[in-house]
Amino acid sequence: MRILGIDPGTRVVGFGCLELVSGRTAPPGVLRSRNSVAAVHGPGRHRLVEAGVLRLGDSGVPIERRLLDLAEGLDRLIARLGPAVLAVEEAFFGKSVQSALRIGEARGAVLVAAARAGLPVAQYPPATIKLRVAGAGGASKQALARMVEAGLGARDLPLDASDALAVAWCHALSTEGRVRPETPMGG
Amino acid sequence: MRILGIDPGTRVVGFGCLELVSGRTAPPGVLRSRNSVAAVHGPGRHRLVEAGVLRLGDSGVPIERRLLDLAEGLDRLIARLGPAVLAVEEAFFGKSVQSALRIGEARGAVLVAAARAGLPVAQYPPATIKLRVAGAGGASKQALARMVEAGLGARDLPLDASDALAVAWCHALSTEGRVRPETPMGG
Repeated sequence: MRILGIDPGTRVVGFGCLELVSGRTAPPGVLRSRNSVAAVHGPGRHRLVEAGVLRLGDSGVPIERRLLDLAEGLDRLIARLGPAVLAVEEAFFGKSVQSALRIGEARGAVLVAAARAGLPVAQYPPATIKLRVAGAGGASKQALARMVEAGLGARDLPLDASDALAVAWCHALSTEGRVRPETPMGG
Repeated sequence: MRILGIDPGTRVVGFGCLELVSGRTAPPGVLRSRNSVAAVHGPGRHRLVEAGVLRLGDSGVPIERRLLDLAEGLDRLIARLGPAVLAVEEAFFGKSVQSALRIGEARGAVLVAAARAGLPVAQYPPATIKLRVAGAGGASKQALARMVEAGLGARDLPLDASDALAVAWCHALSTEGRVRPETPMGG
């Protein structure tokens, strides 16, 4: 199963796609070390499929045109990568009301594109992403980026792509947490 | 030329469509009185085509589904009413960062739908809408709604639909203001 993480912004939108690989045999690119971040978090195998950024043009381009570029860029990404779910950070904290409005516009374009493609959307608060990926809800953005690099073998990523991978990874770890073995006492 | 005004919200989205009618013969529904609000504002003729609201489902419906409903509802409105331009309030003032984020999401869905349909988007600050429509940048929402009722002959409209008509009307008046007769001194 593939998870597409998205980090929406007004000029640059990060994306990161992970594949959950089941079974004991790890295919190429999957983390094997028991000391890796993924090994610490659980038995799941996560393969980095692709990560990068969509650039939406500068402030000279009308906002509706930039948002359409974002929506169409996402349509193409979804068609090419074939994710089963889209993951985004739940909310935007701090900064100004005007910044929140602009980020909200980008989120709106992303959410519509996901729904149009029939993808469910999983949202996580920033503190949950930091806790699951970096082990601390108050982790810095730099610490989160280092964990993504170390755990997923992603080198020299733009910060927006790294943030997108972090939310995809958070969803991967959350999904594993919900899959529990059946017990005799169940029901 | 038709103008579609939109007042984006998270559960209810107002819309209002006006037609600019040129020439001296006013068709049915056009304001004729020199005492009407439209007559005070200028020589333009504005015919109310249709106004109402799109309802997007309650908070039990996932946000991406509500935003897709909004986008698809707008697609249908645009196809049916055939506007040449879409007008929205430029910004969102006051309230919280979280409210701004939610309104931004709805705006993002609206702006993408407009761009997808090839419509230019005109945005106006709230004070400009109040100034042009009600004659005072600090006019109350109630005063604005009364002006829309009186000037466009729209009765018993939901407030969201009235707000959408106000921004469409603001664009109509702004367009007229930019069309000036040529002068011998021009150039």
